[in-house]
Amino acid sequence: MLKLPDGYRAAGVHCGIKKSGKRDLALFVSDHPAAAAGVFTTNKVSAAPVKLCRSRIGRHHARAIVANSGNANACTGERGLRDARRMAAVTAAALGIEEDEVLVCSTGHIGRYLPMDRVEAGIKSAAASLSAVAGAAAAEAILTTDTRIKERSLTIEVGGHAVRITGVAKGSGMIAPHMATMLAFILTDAAVDADTLQAGLTDVVARTFNRITVDGDRSTNDSVLLLANGAAGNPELNGENADWDVFHRALEDVCMHLALEIVRDGEGATRLVTIRVRGAAHAADAERAARAVAESFLVKTSWSGRFVNWGRIMDALGYSGADMDEESVDISYDGVPAVRGGVAAAGEEDRLAQVVAGDEYTIEIDLHRGEGEAVIYSCNCTEEYVRINM
Amino acid sequence: MLKLPDGYRAAGVHCGIKKSGKRDLALFVSDHPAAAAGVFTTNKVSAAPVKLCRSRIGRHHARAIVANSGNANACTGERGLRDARRMAAVTAAALGIEEDEVLVCSTGHIGRYLPMDRVEAGIKSAAASLSAVAGAAAAEAILTTDTRIKERSLTIEVGGHAVRITGVAKGSGMIAPHMATMLAFILTDAAVDADTLQAGLTDVVARTFNRITVDGDRSTNDSVLLLANGAAGNPELNGENADWDVFHRALEDVCMHLALEIVRDGEGATRLVTIRVRGAAHAADAERAARAVAESFLVKTSWSGRFVNWGRIMDALGYSGADMDEESVDISYDGVPAVRGGVAAAGEEDRLAQVVAGDEYTIEIDLHRGEGEAVIYSCNCTEEYVRINM
Repeated sequence: MLKLPDGYRAAGVHCGIKKSGKRDLALFVSDHPAAAAGVFTTNKVSAAPVKLCRSRIGRHHARAIVANSGNANACTGERGLRDARRMAAVTAAALGIEEDEVLVCSTGHIGRYLPMDRVEAGIKSAAASLSAVAGAAAAEAILTTDTRIKERSLTIEVGGHAVRITGVAKGSGMIAPHMATMLAFILTDAAVDADTLQAGLTDVVARTFNRITVDGDRSTNDSVLLLANGAAGNPELNGENADWDVFHRALEDVCMHLALEIVRDGEGATRLVTIRVRGAAHAADAERAARAVAESFLVKTSWSGRFVNWGRIMDALGYSGADMDEESVDISYDGVPAVRGGVAAAGEEDRLAQVVAGDEYTIEIDLHRGEGEAVIYSCNCTEEYVRINM
Repeated sequence: MLKLPDGYRAAGVHCGIKKSGKRDLALFVSDHPAAAAGVFTTNKVSAAPVKLCRSRIGRHHARAIVANSGNANACTGERGLRDARRMAAVTAAALGIEEDEVLVCSTGHIGRYLPMDRVEAGIKSAAASLSAVAGAAAAEAILTTDTRIKERSLTIEVGGHAVRITGVAKGSGMIAPHMATMLAFILTDAAVDADTLQAGLTDVVARTFNRITVDGDRSTNDSVLLLANGAAGNPELNGENADWDVFHRALEDVCMHLALEIVRDGEGATRLVTIRVRGAAHAADAERAARAVAESFLVKTSWSGRFVNWGRIMDALGYSGADMDEESVDISYDGVPAVRGGVAAAGEEDRLAQVVAGDEYTIEIDLHRGEGEAVIYSCNCTEEYVRINM
């Protein structure tokens, strides 16, 4: 069971956006004002709720997150912004809090207006059913083509107080045959200074959620929200505290777990493949090389087969833009050499075939040009991916 | 029937690289030394025959092109280079010409060594069966996962002489489950100054072959070769000639036809979709925007369905890097408006559904930022694409 940190309640209901009858409206509420941090999509086209959250995260504290699935409320212009604000206002009225203490998220199809009558009724029904044990229902209500909920909870000690961090996320996919979105909500009862919380989240997201790829398409709705309500009673954490590192590491653990769960549950995916590039001229080149490999559909489809197809990886490295000489490239799969000096490392075919038959493995690429390193977590592409998105 | 220009003969045989028993070795021979031009992959990882051709095109004339399918001779190191040179030497010996008058191409799986005994026997057999009417057999022998040969012939008048231009191409895909390559060979009996020929080819390729995408993966083997043997007897063309424009336009017609045939025959593809971007801040931004749309697998899979999913196009534009405001974007399908000012253009659902049910249509995107324009030809992504590449 998904146990929320102290001082939080949640609800997940079906309000009628999804035709399937599945839950499509989630509410997370903190009993006390919580320090709030957020990281959002870098796409120049962004959803109405993303625009709203961006402006509200600046206020530094929040009391509630309301999120719907089945409709992204993106590319909906002024009307979409009014609808997002209305979601916040209805939530605030139902909870007896201020409208600008409510953060709003949406995920699903782009370009359609929200059925606001259903959404408003859903918010009222969710507010009436809030409970400390309904975290799983709320986590379910943010899913679209995901096949399962994604959750991670940790308890750590901060200044002699037990502090809990609970994160939930969605990402895979689509609703009906539609647009991918990643959402993650992380709740903690720790007391944390708001500026420190935002800096910590920005840093952690760069090393977790921003290292994953399912199809290389950055969504219009991607949002990670973090609330810290102080219910644990610990002395307020800031960057100077020794305990900040403990909290920061735990936050990274939660985010990394959720990020990898998103890749494992990528649309149609059956394999999690980690791409580690080292020996690049610098970090930016390592990133270019790793992303080119991780996002090539020829590479990703080959991971669905039974044979090592390292030629496609060499090809992707060659067009990645990273400084490289093909004669210097080494590639190995879970430590088994496949390429040495740009040509086949003979004699390991059987061991390589064994590695790529597994559900999860790591491809290590050494460009032998410098000290640059990067890692990206990707997944295979199957026929199911196409069926889902047609 | 594929009729070659005057002074050319061809052959296409099965030498045993492809297990299917299909033709896998092609030979094109000019009876006279021909001015030669070539354009090659920009991938930093390039096949042995590409390296060889790059050095030989500098010589400005050639007599023969020998090409195998089923094996890319890429990522094969020194041995691969020796094999490519050997293909040229065996061809030269069989034809009684100089080794450096022979251009070499390969396409197929990356990272395997060529079975040189079979290749050498195949070259000898091809040389023995050269004929002016065997162009179709040669065009067939360069195919891999292509479902049909790609050919275009034109006759134009140059300085009172009938001049013929014949082009053949392959590109789609893969051999067995393997690496995409595009090859095109264009033969003409025109007399053309070699420097003019190279400049003309470079210009035409930029506006034809470089505007297409099937999966966004630039191959290690992409090559376009053009031979002009002068058998038509026209006064030699150079940039100063009035007739150069006629030739240049005909060359562009041949290349554009072959390029579009490659997209139509893209792996698993059933639809040709043209992306036209206008109103970008400048041409480079228009190109970024068009490529982001044309290469997004979420967009390409949506083209396999029955509904207009313009939200994915807005999303791709947003992460393309092009300067844009979502509120200024207009999108139409074959002239039917889908998006006006970044939101749905209501009331056209039926006409839009009709357009996207067709085999070929054009998506026009106006960013309303400036004068930049670009066009990219793409295709849909189906489950068959994944099956072919697993």
